[in-house]
Amino acid sequence: MRAREALSCAMDKGVTLLPEDEGKSLMAEYGISVPHGRRVSNLAEAERAAVEIGYPLVLKALVPGLAHKSESRAVLLNIADLRGLRSAIADMSRRFPEVPFLVEEMATEGAELIAGLVDDPQLGPCLMIGTGGIFTEVFEDAVFLLLPATRADIVAALPRLRGYRLLSGFRGSPPVDKKRLVDALEGLAKFGVDAAGYYDAVDINPLRAAADTTVALDVKVHMKQVVTARPEGRDLNSHDFAGFFEPRSVAIVGASNTPGKPGNTVIKNLIANGYQGEIYPVNPKGGEILGYTVYRSSAELPEGVDLAVIIVPAKDSPESLRDVASRGIKHVVLSAGGFAETSDTGATIQQELLDILAQNYMRALGPNTSGNISTPSRFTSSFFPLGELRRGNVGYIAQTGNFATFTMKYILTGEYFGVSRVVGLGNKIDVDESQALAYLGADPETHAIVMYVESIKYPRKFLEVARTVTREKPVVMLKGGATAAGKQAASAHTAALAAEDRIIDGLLRQAGITRLENYSDLVLAGKVLSMCPLPDGNRVGFLAPSGAMLVALSDLCTRLGLTLPSLMEETRERIQAITPSFIRIRKPVDIWAAALSCGVKPAYADGLDALLKDPNLDAVIAIFMLTREMGMPDSFSFVSELAQQHKDKPVLISFTGDKECMDECRSALEPLGIPTFMQIEEPFRALSILHRCAQVKKRPQ
Amino acid sequence: MRAREALSCAMDKGVTLLPEDEGKSLMAEYGISVPHGRRVSNLAEAERAAVEIGYPLVLKALVPGLAHKSESRAVLLNIADLRGLRSAIADMSRRFPEVPFLVEEMATEGAELIAGLVDDPQLGPCLMIGTGGIFTEVFEDAVFLLLPATRADIVAALPRLRGYRLLSGFRGSPPVDKKRLVDALEGLAKFGVDAAGYYDAVDINPLRAAADTTVALDVKVHMKQVVTARPEGRDLNSHDFAGFFEPRSVAIVGASNTPGKPGNTVIKNLIANGYQGEIYPVNPKGGEILGYTVYRSSAELPEGVDLAVIIVPAKDSPESLRDVASRGIKHVVLSAGGFAETSDTGATIQQELLDILAQNYMRALGPNTSGNISTPSRFTSSFFPLGELRRGNVGYIAQTGNFATFTMKYILTGEYFGVSRVVGLGNKIDVDESQALAYLGADPETHAIVMYVESIKYPRKFLEVARTVTREKPVVMLKGGATAAGKQAASAHTAALAAEDRIIDGLLRQAGITRLENYSDLVLAGKVLSMCPLPDGNRVGFLAPSGAMLVALSDLCTRLGLTLPSLMEETRERIQAITPSFIRIRKPVDIWAAALSCGVKPAYADGLDALLKDPNLDAVIAIFMLTREMGMPDSFSFVSELAQQHKDKPVLISFTGDKECMDECRSALEPLGIPTFMQIEEPFRALSILHRCAQVKKRPQ
Repeated sequence: MRAREALSCAMDKGVTLLPEDEGKSLMAEYGISVPHGRRVSNLAEAERAAVEIGYPLVLKALVPGLAHKSESRAVLLNIADLRGLRSAIADMSRRFPEVPFLVEEMATEGAELIAGLVDDPQLGPCLMIGTGGIFTEVFEDAVFLLLPATRADIVAALPRLRGYRLLSGFRGSPPVDKKRLVDALEGLAKFGVDAAGYYDAVDINPLRAAADTTVALDVKVHMKQVVTARPEGRDLNSHDFAGFFEPRSVAIVGASNTPGKPGNTVIKNLIANGYQGEIYPVNPKGGEILGYTVYRSSAELPEGVDLAVIIVPAKDSPESLRDVASRGIKHVVLSAGGFAETSDTGATIQQELLDILAQNYMRALGPNTSGNISTPSRFTSSFFPLGELRRGNVGYIAQTGNFATFTMKYILTGEYFGVSRVVGLGNKIDVDESQALAYLGADPETHAIVMYVESIKYPRKFLEVARTVTREKPVVMLKGGATAAGKQAASAHTAALAAEDRIIDGLLRQAGITRLENYSDLVLAGKVLSMCPLPDGNRVGFLAPSGAMLVALSDLCTRLGLTLPSLMEETRERIQAITPSFIRIRKPVDIWAAALSCGVKPAYADGLDALLKDPNLDAVIAIFMLTREMGMPDSFSFVSELAQQHKDKPVLISFTGDKECMDECRSALEPLGIPTFMQIEEPFRALSILHRCAQVKKRPQ
Repeated sequence: MRAREALSCAMDKGVTLLPEDEGKSLMAEYGISVPHGRRVSNLAEAERAAVEIGYPLVLKALVPGLAHKSESRAVLLNIADLRGLRSAIADMSRRFPEVPFLVEEMATEGAELIAGLVDDPQLGPCLMIGTGGIFTEVFEDAVFLLLPATRADIVAALPRLRGYRLLSGFRGSPPVDKKRLVDALEGLAKFGVDAAGYYDAVDINPLRAAADTTVALDVKVHMKQVVTARPEGRDLNSHDFAGFFEPRSVAIVGASNTPGKPGNTVIKNLIANGYQGEIYPVNPKGGEILGYTVYRSSAELPEGVDLAVIIVPAKDSPESLRDVASRGIKHVVLSAGGFAETSDTGATIQQELLDILAQNYMRALGPNTSGNISTPSRFTSSFFPLGELRRGNVGYIAQTGNFATFTMKYILTGEYFGVSRVVGLGNKIDVDESQALAYLGADPETHAIVMYVESIKYPRKFLEVARTVTREKPVVMLKGGATAAGKQAASAHTAALAAEDRIIDGLLRQAGITRLENYSDLVLAGKVLSMCPLPDGNRVGFLAPSGAMLVALSDLCTRLGLTLPSLMEETRERIQAITPSFIRIRKPVDIWAAALSCGVKPAYADGLDALLKDPNLDAVIAIFMLTREMGMPDSFSFVSELAQQHKDKPVLISFTGDKECMDECRSALEPLGIPTFMQIEEPFRALSILHRCAQVKKRPQ
């Protein structure tokens, strides 16, 4: 490849910043237009170049390693004639002696963009697109895409620029030719892949986009000092995961007879869930634990045990791991904490574990994980007292122990939906989010995937897996550490803008993953994804018992990207028919007067039915008014019956009024598969998650 | 005043757009620098002007009514010499025959701003400040202030511009002289007040701000066709409100013997609350209602009744109002709906009510209100079955019936805090949000005020009242209809940018009111304001039982403007001392391992105490981990005891784990005055409300 050859050659010479003309000729090879120009060494050559190129001209001094030509006055614009050229060369030669020049045609007018590449220390090569000049610096108006990026990624990224309107023609200028612009960005993305490992950053600033051209007016390639390769993890093999999620037998290394100890609780959890496989407790004391015969050492375990859960202190983990390896056990859950997350000593032990795993071709979850859950197999390796788990169709992948401990306990006691699998990633020395996602993507028990991660181990592998999975199943994610100060001090604009969170944002959009904002949304999303279909669009109708709620919730819809279309006239008339005339039915529907005059249940049943039948609506939300005095409905099954008749439309419920009545309604509806929410904003936020999942599922390839 | 004279004179001539030189000379009178310039009619005059001003020059054709000079090429910049001037005059004279010219000095470099005035149809005269040029149009980077605005308002508004960084020196240019800039804006604000009623909009675009000058390069005054006066409501008299909130006797016009009817419920509510005053039911049927003798007509009521609650259909309201007026009753609550909010007929009746009120010097709440609440007087006019109300120190002003109906029911059954007064504004033909705010501002029973409004009837009066009240008491507001498409199609930039929500945002900041985003926050804010002190600053420490929660909640703090300072070393050491070494204590605090090893209660008690004693922290939040198996604390009073020892620091609690345990903790702590929240994000959002209230209380005058 020419790109690598050229960069390799420059690297050998110790070049830190590629000369502008060389950078431009590389870009030109990737189909990016650059101004017509010539490198010259003296006035005579410059004059010849001027004849060839034609005035007006630009003259640039090619000072080695100088990144900021304008600030150093190493650029002279708008040279109109030979006299101007001579004085420019004279001036520049005085200030930059012994330096070659670049003579270039003056650029045409157009929208000023900036494009670039950066090899992010965490996330690797990325493409950046931004609005240029002062916009970049003041508004930091830039989007990032992980490389390799598809043309569709680039097309979808452009409208995310806040200055996107600049491309549609501005103050009388004609609209930018977006195809050419995308061509140029695609060329840059290809260069970014081909030359990966050679550059720290590339700035095309400005990239001038006009009605008939997109031209790179300046190109700076900031070189690495040595080529940097980036590992991308081993290939995935989802049936490797059967040992974790469908084990026929499990050894508990560090089992305990003391109630409350993790090594005791893990067995109690298995019993509570009716686990059908064999259980082999291991403890040097021997004897019996909860009715199971204890093995004094892992080395004494029978052959062919599918999984070992190792619950011993960090320092003892390597020995235990060697012992289970010696019995041919290929899957382990490493529960203890105290490894790389804590200290250097811990990091050393963690590396030792990794070596043992590699030598024995073993797969491991953790260390520092509270374990995994697999309800179809009635299995969990969690050492937290969970009791019986609830089977469902949502899978969790969590770089936290919470979804096999406290938050799962909350889901079991405060919610009604169930889970298929939970993967607690821990320090992910082996199993990482990409592999877990591939497994759940292929898992027939899992219909939707909820993720919490703080880092992405192999971003390219992850993107590749997620691109596929998200076309089949909704995937939502909270990325922890999103607002961490991630910006680097860097001389390249692209690198300066490359806050980790911006890149993650681009990556998740490329991947088709719906991003969550709050920790609690991990539960909210799990619930709504497990209970509702994805809506066809963002058109919502809703019933609420208060004009103020209608107003405030309409504002919320606008913020969430949900629309409130006009109702069909027959829908409106039907609801108006049950409503006293002093309330006029509009979109959304003020239902309180109807409920007062016809009764709460008939009014809501009629209203819901009317909205569900309205072809203008993709989803329906009702805010119930519930008090004993107004008349609590004797049953809420009409809601699920109506939802059953419209299986393609999400139906979500919230309430206002008497807290006890609200709780009653919740506990009546949720077991019927209707999601309810204690705060009136929540069904709207939940619906917007569903809508975003539906959108990405349908996105262009 | 010169401004009004000049504008009045122009208005008489039917001028729609003031000639640029006249606009500029008006601005100059208000202390705003403008370029040195001369109006000329021909080349000879232009040449004389050029000698006086000096080259380079600008030539503008003063075409009457032409707003967009640049687009019409009615401006020629950078005229370098006499030759240039002659050719410019020749060119312009050909294209704009018979038109005078403005010859001006060329402007210096600087940051390009836009400033303006608009007379908003709803909100009246406003000042606009924005970043100029393409920023205005693409990013709509503008802030608004209601006029009259103080110098402090202007100083506080500038940093809200997203392009504020442009003023601090940019790409090598020196910083803008902000004092001069504020001087100019203050001058414009003064003009905006003096000339109110004469202009639709004023654009100063660009306003060029530099290190030594701020110059208005172009001034467009868009005239009204006739002077428009703006009424500002009658003066407030807060003891006028005693009739509503401390009535010694109340007539219920439209009382009913039928349980469930509003005219029955209102009396039941009074009985349930132990109202000590006289109750006079009125109903043509006579007899007795709930033990009270019924009057057949309002005209038969005794003299000196303090308040009449009129619960009759809209069409019958005027007659009832006349009857109670005839008995000398000076305060009425007009409960029925069906007035201006519904139909033209309703609007006519509403006007009739207003006339009767005015003729009889009466005060009214409503119509279309569910009534008011006054717990210190054990009084409510609500016709919604509320039962006994809970006394507290939070006052609600609501342009919705919800806070005397469903949402109050929720507060009574699902929350633990109480209210002082609730004012349901309804259609506010008389009592409006300004008067209600003045009343609650002076009310010793009310320590914090929560508002929901959809419109502000007299914005200037409201601003005046709120500026004072917010220095004494926290005031928070949700403005309904915030995202409504409020933009006008207008030729003035300022008018085009004047979305109602932007003006409201400026007004609330001037007023010192903390803005809420969600309807549910009206309850959240009421609770936290009633239970917590305002913190000294935004420095928060928190305990949570999960690393992932620490990460996600730290992200949330950043988004909310809360900071997580480093703990004092002794704080850190104290908590580390109870924590196993595989967890390293940082800010915030990961408490789960300490809780596992020392017990939940001791760990949290120690942790809370340590954080509360840390002088680096202004507030403390704890996320409790609660399950039976881990050991539920036998009591949570340690939390309120610790909070009592640190009365200046808000203490807020949330939880994770077993829902039943969470509910138990909530019902233990809230009666002790410690606010608890079911979702872990809520205490942070609540604290940010407290923090914003504290900030505005301390704002410069």
